[in-house]
Amino acid sequence: MPRTYRAAVLPAPGAPLRLEERPAPDLAPGAVLLHVLLSEVCGTDVHLRHGRLAGVPYPLIPGHVSVGTVAALRGEARDVDGVAFREGDVAAFLDVHGTCGACHACLVDKETTRCPHRRVYGITFPGDGGLHGGWAEAMHLLPGTKLLRLPDGLPPETYMAGGCGLNTAFHAVERAALRLGDAVVVLGAGAVGQSAVAFAALCGADPVVAVGAPDERLATARRMGATHTLSIEALSPGERLDAVRALTHGRGADAVIEAAGAPEAVVQGAALCRDGGTLVVAGQYTDNGPALWPVHELLNRKHLTVRAVWGSDFSHFYKSIGVLARHHARIPWRDLVTARYPLDQCDAALDAVERRTALKALIAP
Amino acid sequence: MPRTYRAAVLPAPGAPLRLEERPAPDLAPGAVLLHVLLSEVCGTDVHLRHGRLAGVPYPLIPGHVSVGTVAALRGEARDVDGVAFREGDVAAFLDVHGTCGACHACLVDKETTRCPHRRVYGITFPGDGGLHGGWAEAMHLLPGTKLLRLPDGLPPETYMAGGCGLNTAFHAVERAALRLGDAVVVLGAGAVGQSAVAFAALCGADPVVAVGAPDERLATARRMGATHTLSIEALSPGERLDAVRALTHGRGADAVIEAAGAPEAVVQGAALCRDGGTLVVAGQYTDNGPALWPVHELLNRKHLTVRAVWGSDFSHFYKSIGVLARHHARIPWRDLVTARYPLDQCDAALDAVERRTALKALIAP
Amino acid sequence: MPRTYRAAVLPAPGAPLRLEERPAPDLAPGAVLLHVLLSEVCGTDVHLRHGRLAGVPYPLIPGHVSVGTVAALRGEARDVDGVAFREGDVAAFLDVHGTCGACHACLVDKETTRCPHRRVYGITFPGDGGLHGGWAEAMHLLPGTKLLRLPDGLPPETYMAGGCGLNTAFHAVERAALRLGDAVVVLGAGAVGQSAVAFAALCGADPVVAVGAPDERLATARRMGATHTLSIEALSPGERLDAVRALTHGRGADAVIEAAGAPEAVVQGAALCRDGGTLVVAGQYTDNGPALWPVHELLNRKHLTVRAVWGSDFSHFYKSIGVLARHHARIPWRDLVTARYPLDQCDAALDAVERRTALKALIAP
Amino acid sequence: MPRTYRAAVLPAPGAPLRLEERPAPDLAPGAVLLHVLLSEVCGTDVHLRHGRLAGVPYPLIPGHVSVGTVAALRGEARDVDGVAFREGDVAAFLDVHGTCGACHACLVDKETTRCPHRRVYGITFPGDGGLHGGWAEAMHLLPGTKLLRLPDGLPPETYMAGGCGLNTAFHAVERAALRLGDAVVVLGAGAVGQSAVAFAALCGADPVVAVGAPDERLATARRMGATHTLSIEALSPGERLDAVRALTHGRGADAVIEAAGAPEAVVQGAALCRDGGTLVVAGQYTDNGPALWPVHELLNRKHLTVRAVWGSDFSHFYKSIGVLARHHARIPWRDLVTARYPLDQCDAALDAVERRTALKALIAP
Repeated sequence: MPRTYRAAVLPAPGAPLRLEERPAPDLAPGAVLLHVLLSEVCGTDVHLRHGRLAGVPYPLIPGHVSVGTVAALRGEARDVDGVAFREGDVAAFLDVHGTCGACHACLVDKETTRCPHRRVYGITFPGDGGLHGGWAEAMHLLPGTKLLRLPDGLPPETYMAGGCGLNTAFHAVERAALRLGDAVVVLGAGAVGQSAVAFAALCGADPVVAVGAPDERLATARRMGATHTLSIEALSPGERLDAVRALTHGRGADAVIEAAGAPEAVVQGAALCRDGGTLVVAGQYTDNGPALWPVHELLNRKHLTVRAVWGSDFSHFYKSIGVLARHHARIPWRDLVTARYPLDQCDAALDAVERRTALKALIAP
Repeated sequence: MPRTYRAAVLPAPGAPLRLEERPAPDLAPGAVLLHVLLSEVCGTDVHLRHGRLAGVPYPLIPGHVSVGTVAALRGEARDVDGVAFREGDVAAFLDVHGTCGACHACLVDKETTRCPHRRVYGITFPGDGGLHGGWAEAMHLLPGTKLLRLPDGLPPETYMAGGCGLNTAFHAVERAALRLGDAVVVLGAGAVGQSAVAFAALCGADPVVAVGAPDERLATARRMGATHTLSIEALSPGERLDAVRALTHGRGADAVIEAAGAPEAVVQGAALCRDGGTLVVAGQYTDNGPALWPVHELLNRKHLTVRAVWGSDFSHFYKSIGVLARHHARIPWRDLVTARYPLDQCDAALDAVERRTALKALIAP
Repeated sequence: MPRTYRAAVLPAPGAPLRLEERPAPDLAPGAVLLHVLLSEVCGTDVHLRHGRLAGVPYPLIPGHVSVGTVAALRGEARDVDGVAFREGDVAAFLDVHGTCGACHACLVDKETTRCPHRRVYGITFPGDGGLHGGWAEAMHLLPGTKLLRLPDGLPPETYMAGGCGLNTAFHAVERAALRLGDAVVVLGAGAVGQSAVAFAALCGADPVVAVGAPDERLATARRMGATHTLSIEALSPGERLDAVRALTHGRGADAVIEAAGAPEAVVQGAALCRDGGTLVVAGQYTDNGPALWPVHELLNRKHLTVRAVWGSDFSHFYKSIGVLARHHARIPWRDLVTARYPLDQCDAALDAVERRTALKALIAP
Repeated sequence: MPRTYRAAVLPAPGAPLRLEERPAPDLAPGAVLLHVLLSEVCGTDVHLRHGRLAGVPYPLIPGHVSVGTVAALRGEARDVDGVAFREGDVAAFLDVHGTCGACHACLVDKETTRCPHRRVYGITFPGDGGLHGGWAEAMHLLPGTKLLRLPDGLPPETYMAGGCGLNTAFHAVERAALRLGDAVVVLGAGAVGQSAVAFAALCGADPVVAVGAPDERLATARRMGATHTLSIEALSPGERLDAVRALTHGRGADAVIEAAGAPEAVVQGAALCRDGGTLVVAGQYTDNGPALWPVHELLNRKHLTVRAVWGSDFSHFYKSIGVLARHHARIPWRDLVTARYPLDQCDAALDAVERRTALKALIAP
């Protein structure tokens, strides 16, 4: 085992990443050292670059979803099914650590994604000296981090193609509480939207309408399971509404999943729901401003249910990996990865994601 | 039986009401002629006066919640428990008629309050010649109208004190899906808000915080079951937020029920919810403009659930009358009525409701 | 139009069917005369033959699920989407008629399958003189009967292959409240079980384990979507439990759907559930005796949820036809029909179903 | 602080308890030493005495629900609201320890009461040398044990009067998913049944019918909130069914909560439910044999939902203490305690509970 590992460190908002050598950590009982195979470049990393997230302790090592090989572990670490990890296992982990299991959010409200003690590897772990982000040759996973072995036959790159959005999309589709045969609209054709399309289709939704741009992403959405696509470049909001109504006997969708990011998409989502339908809001992860919501016409009068989605919990991680392993041969999650970068080209990876020339980029340390 | 009945007719938006004599109707099998004892003057009637509701067929006889004595019926009309009505029974009816039981909303979505065939006595029944509103000596209830005998010991005036808001409030509290001991905030101290306070308290909510104005209405809310009240005249939105947090270990309410009417109340309601809480939107019955909703901070990030409430169905009518009958001796619904008017003073009744000098006014034909 | 129609009449329990000529009915406004293309022979018909159902008004014309051509209609009949029926339309109907929309079950409990006024064509409509069962050249559908046009591209025989069990299975899978990726066991490989397998798979369940016999039916279940099958002829209950545990990390199934008929299947279903799982009981449609249920070990201690399913409502009919139309090219519902009989061989059809030589038989009048 | 504490030890099934002196424990960081004020004698302790529970490590110190004064703590222990405990605080704890937060039951199924690592103070903690049961002058609570300060104004004895059954009853009523105004039947007038009556009434159920014996317990149930009581000594099962139907327009209860213990009570509970109603099974905590359940008539055909309740989680503990604190002045939980015993009379306390001469007995060390 090498005694030091290279890591890409983001020193401060606006600054370029720099490579640093970090020493191998001392492992506490239950901790794991992971040799990183692949780590994700996500829209959130673009926000980190620009300092748009509150409470982030710069400098930090980005990379909140990663897959790697268990290089060392101290004492025993078991997966949720009770099987002990061993060196050489290829494993992924839930990016969230420190959900406390002892506060009101965890124990009484059972809303663990709102636990105030929750920290996210690659985002809210301080990077000064440690190895707590994925854009590095190795990661130091603290005791209690939720690890899962990749299921047999699931290539690491395919898992990473789902990546961060996989869990969120699973959670979003779960919050939509679909009935078999429901008409679903997914707003946004990025990473969350693409997986939401796939999961809605796997739940038996029909039609599954993907709304977004550019055309290549809509073509990808069709491969992921969308029965219809609507381009926001080619169609006005009113035309999209007409199109959704034409597919649903004039009623609108049973459920709309907003994974677009623009505040006005939330209101458009409400318009696309049928009366009494469900709108899932999963795309407002950073503050892009308020939505101007006609609450009489597009909320009260429609008798809507709106469910917001913040983060994901272990059940979404566990279930979504299982579903991915089962269906990846047929549903081309793998194609969501459109670019790979070595550790010394993280800035170029961020550029590609920011300019949307890559749907998803990976760092391969 | 008299051959004609006096009715107060609203000829057109903005015009004063005029008294007309209408002939006793011919009853189809299953129809009922009700001698009106009391009919409600509701905020919706003020909107009717000003032409603020779409799809209203002027002229019309207002009065969508009424109680009366069965004066005549043709053939057989049974209540939901299978008991036949007889002349002399004192009965109330659900204001909604024509929910079709045959459309997608009724049968597949099971959202009957959004049935497109739904008509409301006193609002969307044409008043030209018929007796389909409650501000009249008699009402003609068409076959299939859902009638209920008033339970023993429930005075007609007490039922009317709950009135239209009783059903809506019951529906709103049901949509809040309360857990015993949940902290609840009710925004708005009008008719819906007052009954929502009472129903939340009867569900075991604690605290039950009523937010509104003026002070007399807040005093009423305390008698209805509010454990705390917050005046929107005395406290800024920020101070109300602080006050709700102080009552909830800093977290915010498990559920907020908006029954206030102003669009900004919806956003304030979202702010008052705890993370992962539930906001019920029941107050936007007319279009008072859009809400400016910070969807990142006060929707997505809070992981909220928002449930809008449009109207009520028979189950809310049936259940709320039963609850009222059981608890009216202890909870002073009766005090919500603050004014009574004869049939020739309907304009004065509307003035009182519009100027908010009366919390609730009744017409006694 | 011919003035009389041939119908197969079951005069009394135990008696052979006899052909009668019945006159074309007078149609009330909204009624429909359907020329029957196909009608189902169901396990329930075997029970009718033997007088095992209470409240059946012999003589009757069996056949509770049928498809036909609209031969005549009086006035207007519209489908749930508002489209008027026309002569020549090929249509199916929900076998249930008379759900009243006016009783406590319909309006307050919203459990319409338990409406006391519910009557079923082919079972609880008296057959003396009328045409209210499907084993006839024509059926007389009373006003208010819920008709649906067969979707484009869905052959009548394919619809009939799903038949009666399609709705029940849809309802059962809905009551299972599956999460994407849940492990599901279906007990019973008859008509309900086969469709339940297909619907569970379409909801993204994995694995989907079909338990039953004989081997051909298990082979059919695999084509319908079962990932694994367990033979009740080859394996003891304990071996089946071991097999289900082996597929679920030792835990048992997230949901078990009992569609087997034997009372002990209910208890076995409880054993096959994981702790905190869900058991749907849909197979006890006639009284085959009580189950001996160890309520400490296999109910309370397991923290189970058990949901029984009686009948289906219009939403199941509407949704299941849509799902069938979308997926029948891939999922071989059509193969569930293994025998067809003309109207004068209904007794032979009943024999085949009773002896289980046919999974599903149809009458083609 | 004394250096040793007296504890009542149950050496083996069938043996009398003996007093032992145990040394004060060394506290790990986060551990708490509680000076016991009161500990409960529960029906489960009678089962322990007779060796009826599997997996119990004799010798042990019984007492799974207790209240005491914080005598010492090492490092920091905070409650769920984030407030640190201090010496002198009067606190209760959830009897369950070791729910792991890391297994499939905890993380994926979210059924923490079925976590295989769960241990219960006073039942499944070995008592050899330690102080892990409440029938002792002091208890040693391991780090992570969920402690709550008693709310202001809630006397320790009143809390203990609710005791073990308080949490279970809260969980059971929650599983009943009551609607305001629902008709509820509670089977069993022991500790769980009495609290279930109170909680159902606080949720606004009406009527609340308590079924049990002897008459004094039914009198207690009326004080706890039952609107009606039915004696199982005076009335046959058929008469009880008639009585419940007479109170519910012939329909049966919306929800039945079984807290009786006899297997036949489960089946009777199914009979007392209305069609489409909910049966909660909470009384089969030890194996009293199987129930003979007519699954056609009393499960499938009734379209029932059955929810079993095993144990309780922290949310039930937290919520139920809050509700108790709010309502104990009006609802006489305190009266459920009918006997107190010093530490050297534990056998007499067990006798009293076993012979049912005491509804609830407490040990006051």
